[in-house]
Amino acid sequence: MATKTMTTREVADRLVELCRKGLVLEAQQELFADEVTSHEPAHSQTPPAIGKEAVLAKGKHFVSLIEERRSGSFEDPIIAGDYFSFVCKLDATLKGVGKVVWDEICVFGVKNGKVISEQFFY
Amino acid sequence: MATKTMTTREVADRLVELCRKGLVLEAQQELFADEVTSHEPAHSQTPPAIGKEAVLAKGKHFVSLIEERRSGSFEDPIIAGDYFSFVCKLDATLKGVGKVVWDEICVFGVKNGKVISEQFFY
Repeated sequence: MATKTMTTREVADRLVELCRKGLVLEAQQELFADEVTSHEPAHSQTPPAIGKEAVLAKGKHFVSLIEERRSGSFEDPIIAGDYFSFVCKLDATLKGVGKVVWDEICVFGVKNGKVISEQFFY
Repeated sequence: MATKTMTTREVADRLVELCRKGLVLEAQQELFADEVTSHEPAHSQTPPAIGKEAVLAKGKHFVSLIEERRSGSFEDPIIAGDYFSFVCKLDATLKGVGKVVWDEICVFGVKNGKVISEQFFY
Protein backbone atom coordinates (compact mmCIF):
# COMPACT_ATOMS: atom_id res chain seq x y z
CA MET A 1 0.00 0.00 0.00
CA ALA A 2 1.41 3.36 -0.99
CA THR A 3 1.62 5.83 1.90
CA LYS A 4 1.05 9.50 1.20
CA THR A 5 3.78 11.74 2.61
CA MET A 6 2.40 13.91 5.39
CA THR A 7 2.45 17.68 4.94
CA THR A 8 4.05 19.98 7.50
CA ARG A 9 0.55 20.85 8.75
CA GLU A 10 -0.34 17.18 9.15
CA VAL A 11 2.88 16.38 11.02
CA ALA A 12 2.35 19.41 13.29
CA ASP A 13 -1.26 18.53 14.07
CA ARG A 14 -0.41 14.88 14.75
CA LEU A 15 2.50 15.80 17.03
CA VAL A 16 0.33 18.18 19.05
CA GLU A 17 -2.52 15.68 19.16
CA LEU A 18 -0.30 12.94 20.60
CA CYS A 19 1.50 15.27 23.02
CA ARG A 20 -1.85 16.51 24.36
CA LYS A 21 -2.75 12.90 25.11
CA GLY A 22 0.49 12.54 27.07
CA LEU A 23 1.98 10.38 24.32
CA VAL A 24 5.18 12.38 23.77
CA LEU A 25 7.46 9.36 23.41
CA GLU A 26 4.99 7.67 21.06
CA ALA A 27 4.85 10.87 19.01
CA GLN A 28 8.63 10.91 18.66
CA GLN A 29 8.67 7.24 17.71
CA GLU A 30 6.01 7.74 15.05
CA LEU A 31 6.96 11.10 13.57
CA PHE A 32 10.71 11.58 13.96
CA ALA A 33 13.15 10.77 11.14
CA ASP A 34 16.22 8.62 11.74
CA GLU A 35 18.44 11.68 11.24
CA VAL A 36 16.48 13.99 13.59
CA THR A 37 18.44 16.48 15.73
CA SER A 38 17.40 18.13 19.00
CA HIS A 39 18.87 21.44 20.19
CA GLU A 40 18.40 23.08 23.57
CA PRO A 41 19.56 26.68 24.12
CA ALA A 42 23.31 27.17 24.64
CA HIS A 43 22.72 28.29 28.26
CA SER A 44 21.07 24.96 29.11
CA GLN A 45 24.42 23.13 28.85
CA THR A 46 22.54 20.18 27.36
CA PRO A 47 24.45 19.03 24.27
CA PRO A 48 22.54 18.50 21.00
CA ALA A 49 21.06 15.03 20.52
CA ILE A 50 21.82 13.69 17.04
CA GLY A 51 19.83 10.83 15.53
CA LYS A 52 16.50 9.28 16.46
CA GLU A 53 17.96 6.91 19.04
CA ALA A 54 19.66 9.75 20.92
CA VAL A 55 16.59 12.00 20.70
CA LEU A 56 14.28 9.23 21.93
CA ALA A 57 16.69 8.52 24.80
CA LYS A 58 16.67 12.22 25.69
CA GLY A 59 12.87 12.25 25.67
CA LYS A 60 12.67 9.10 27.76
CA HIS A 61 15.17 10.45 30.26
CA PHE A 62 13.20 13.67 30.60
CA VAL A 63 9.92 11.85 31.17
CA SER A 64 11.62 9.72 33.85
CA LEU A 65 12.54 12.90 35.75
CA ILE A 66 8.94 14.06 36.16
CA GLU A 67 7.82 13.39 39.72
CA GLU A 68 4.67 15.47 39.53
CA ARG A 69 3.09 17.22 36.57
CA ARG A 70 0.76 19.90 37.91
CA SER A 71 -0.20 21.35 34.54
CA GLY A 72 1.06 21.75 31.02
CA SER A 73 -0.10 22.49 27.53
CA PHE A 74 0.84 22.29 23.88
CA GLU A 75 -0.59 25.30 22.06
CA ASP A 76 -1.81 25.30 18.46
CA PRO A 77 1.05 25.24 15.93
CA ILE A 78 1.91 27.92 13.39
CA ILE A 79 3.14 26.64 10.02
CA ALA A 80 5.57 27.98 7.41
CA GLY A 81 6.88 25.81 4.60
CA ASP A 82 8.93 22.96 6.07
CA TYR A 83 8.77 24.34 9.63
CA PHE A 84 6.28 24.69 12.41
CA SER A 85 6.35 26.20 15.86
CA PHE A 86 4.27 26.03 19.00
CA VAL A 87 4.31 27.10 22.61
CA CYS A 88 4.77 24.42 25.26
CA LYS A 89 4.12 25.05 28.95
CA LEU A 90 4.94 22.84 31.91
CA ASP A 91 4.47 23.21 35.65
CA ALA A 92 6.10 20.19 37.24
CA THR A 93 8.43 18.84 39.89
CA LEU A 94 11.53 17.15 38.49
CA LYS A 95 13.75 14.67 40.35
CA GLY A 96 16.90 16.40 41.52
CA VAL A 97 15.71 19.75 40.20
CA GLY A 98 12.57 20.62 42.14
CA LYS A 99 9.67 22.74 40.97
CA VAL A 100 9.88 24.16 37.45
CA VAL A 101 7.49 26.39 35.55
CA TRP A 102 8.46 26.37 31.90
CA ASP A 103 7.14 28.30 28.98
CA GLU A 104 8.99 27.74 25.72
CA ILE A 105 8.88 28.15 21.97
CA CYS A 106 9.49 24.88 20.10
CA VAL A 107 10.46 24.89 16.41
CA PHE A 108 10.35 21.73 14.29
CA GLY A 109 11.69 21.08 10.79
CA VAL A 110 9.99 18.58 8.49
CA LYS A 111 11.36 16.63 5.53
CA ASN A 112 9.58 13.86 3.63
CA GLY A 113 6.77 13.84 6.17
CA LYS A 114 9.03 13.34 9.19
CA VAL A 115 10.45 15.66 11.84
CA ILE A 116 14.15 16.19 11.14
CA SER A 117 14.91 18.86 13.75
CA GLU A 118 13.58 20.27 16.98
CA GLN A 119 14.90 23.35 18.72
CA PHE A 120 13.76 24.93 21.97
CA PHE A 121 13.83 28.56 23.02
CA TYR A 122 13.56 29.53 26.70
CA MET B 1 10.31 60.27 33.12
CA ALA B 2 10.62 56.61 34.02
CA THR B 3 9.96 54.27 31.11
CA LYS B 4 8.25 50.99 31.80
CA THR B 5 10.07 47.99 30.33
CA MET B 6 8.00 46.40 27.58
CA THR B 7 6.86 42.82 28.05
CA THR B 8 7.57 40.12 25.46
CA ARG B 9 3.95 40.43 24.29
CA GLU B 10 4.29 44.21 23.90
CA VAL B 11 7.54 43.92 21.96
CA ALA B 12 6.03 41.23 19.71
CA ASP B 13 2.88 43.22 19.01
CA ARG B 14 4.83 46.42 18.30
CA LEU B 15 7.25 44.61 15.96
CA VAL B 16 4.39 43.07 14.00
CA GLU B 17 2.48 46.36 13.95
CA LEU B 18 5.44 48.25 12.44
CA CYS B 19 6.33 45.46 10.00
CA ARG B 20 2.74 45.37 8.74
CA LYS B 21 3.03 49.09 7.99
CA GLY B 22 6.17 48.39 5.96
CA LEU B 23 8.34 49.94 8.67
CA VAL B 24 10.74 47.02 9.15
CA LEU B 25 13.87 49.13 9.45
CA GLU B 26 12.14 51.53 11.84
CA ALA B 27 11.01 48.53 13.91
CA GLN B 28 14.59 47.28 14.17
CA GLN B 29 15.83 50.75 15.12
CA GLU B 30 13.21 51.12 17.84
CA LEU B 31 13.06 47.62 19.31
CA PHE B 32 16.45 45.97 18.83
CA ALA B 33 19.07 45.93 21.59
CA ASP B 34 22.66 46.97 20.92
CA GLU B 35 23.79 43.36 21.38
CA VAL B 36 21.14 41.82 19.08
CA THR B 37 22.14 38.85 16.91
CA SER B 38 20.55 37.62 13.67
CA HIS B 39 20.86 34.03 12.46
CA GLU B 40 19.81 32.63 9.10
CA PRO B 41 19.75 28.84 8.55
CA ALA B 42 23.12 27.18 7.95
CA HIS B 43 22.14 26.32 4.35
CA SER B 44 21.63 30.02 3.52
CA GLN B 45 25.39 30.65 3.70
CA THR B 46 24.60 34.05 5.22
CA PRO B 47 26.83 34.51 8.27
CA PRO B 48 25.26 35.62 11.56
CA ALA B 49 25.00 39.39 12.06
CA ILE B 50 26.22 40.39 15.52
CA GLY B 51 25.29 43.73 17.07
CA LYS B 52 22.61 46.28 16.20
CA GLU B 53 24.72 48.06 13.58
CA ALA B 54 25.36 44.83 11.68
CA VAL B 55 21.73 43.69 11.98
CA LEU B 56 20.41 47.06 10.78
CA ALA B 57 22.87 46.98 7.85
CA LYS B 58 21.64 43.48 6.98
CA GLY B 59 18.02 44.67 7.08
CA LYS B 60 18.80 47.74 4.99
CA HIS B 61 20.68 45.64 2.45
CA PHE B 62 17.76 43.24 2.16
CA VAL B 63 15.24 46.02 1.66
CA SER B 64 17.47 47.49 -1.08
CA LEU B 65 17.28 44.18 -2.98
CA ILE B 66 13.49 44.27 -3.31
CA GLU B 67 12.55 45.27 -6.84
CA GLU B 68 8.91 44.30 -6.58
CA ARG B 69 6.90 43.15 -3.58
CA ARG B 70 3.81 41.37 -4.85
CA SER B 71 2.51 40.31 -1.46
CA GLY B 72 3.64 39.49 2.02
CA SER B 73 2.39 39.16 5.55
CA PHE B 74 3.42 39.04 9.16
CA GLU B 75 1.15 36.65 11.03
CA ASP B 76 0.09 37.01 14.66
CA PRO B 77 2.87 36.14 17.12
CA ILE B 78 2.87 33.31 19.66
CA ILE B 79 4.52 34.12 22.99
CA ALA B 80 6.45 32.06 25.55
CA GLY B 81 8.44 33.67 28.33
CA ASP B 82 11.26 35.72 26.79
CA TYR B 83 10.59 34.48 23.25
CA PHE B 84 8.07 34.97 20.52
CA SER B 85 7.58 33.53 17.07
CA PHE B 86 5.58 34.38 14.00
CA VAL B 87 5.21 33.36 10.38
CA CYS B 88 6.43 35.76 7.72
CA LYS B 89 5.54 35.39 4.04
CA LEU B 90 6.96 37.23 1.05
CA ASP B 91 6.30 37.04 -2.66
CA ALA B 92 8.79 39.38 -4.30
CA THR B 93 11.37 39.91 -7.01
CA LEU B 94 14.88 40.51 -5.70
CA LYS B 95 17.75 42.13 -7.60
CA GLY B 96 20.16 39.49 -8.84
CA VAL B 97 17.97 36.70 -7.50
CA GLY B 98 14.66 36.90 -9.36
CA LYS B 99 11.27 35.83 -8.12
CA VAL B 100 11.08 34.41 -4.60
CA VAL B 101 8.14 33.05 -2.62
CA TRP B 102 9.15 32.75 1.01
CA ASP B 103 7.35 31.34 3.97
CA GLU B 104 9.35 31.26 7.17
CA ILE B 105 9.21 30.89 10.93
CA CYS B 106 10.87 33.78 12.77
CA VAL B 107 11.88 33.45 16.44
CA PHE B 108 12.83 36.48 18.55
CA GLY B 109 14.38 36.65 22.00
CA VAL B 110 13.62 39.55 24.34
CA LYS B 111 15.60 40.94 27.26
CA ASN B 112 14.86 44.11 29.19
CA GLY B 113 12.15 45.06 26.72
CA LYS B 114 14.38 44.83 23.64
CA VAL B 115 14.93 42.17 20.96
CA ILE B 116 18.29 40.48 21.59
CA SER B 117 18.07 37.73 18.99
CA GLU B 118 16.30 36.83 15.78
CA GLN B 119 16.52 33.49 14.02
CA PHE B 120 14.86 32.37 10.82
CA PHE B 121 13.74 28.90 9.77
CA TYR B 122 13.08 28.10 6.10
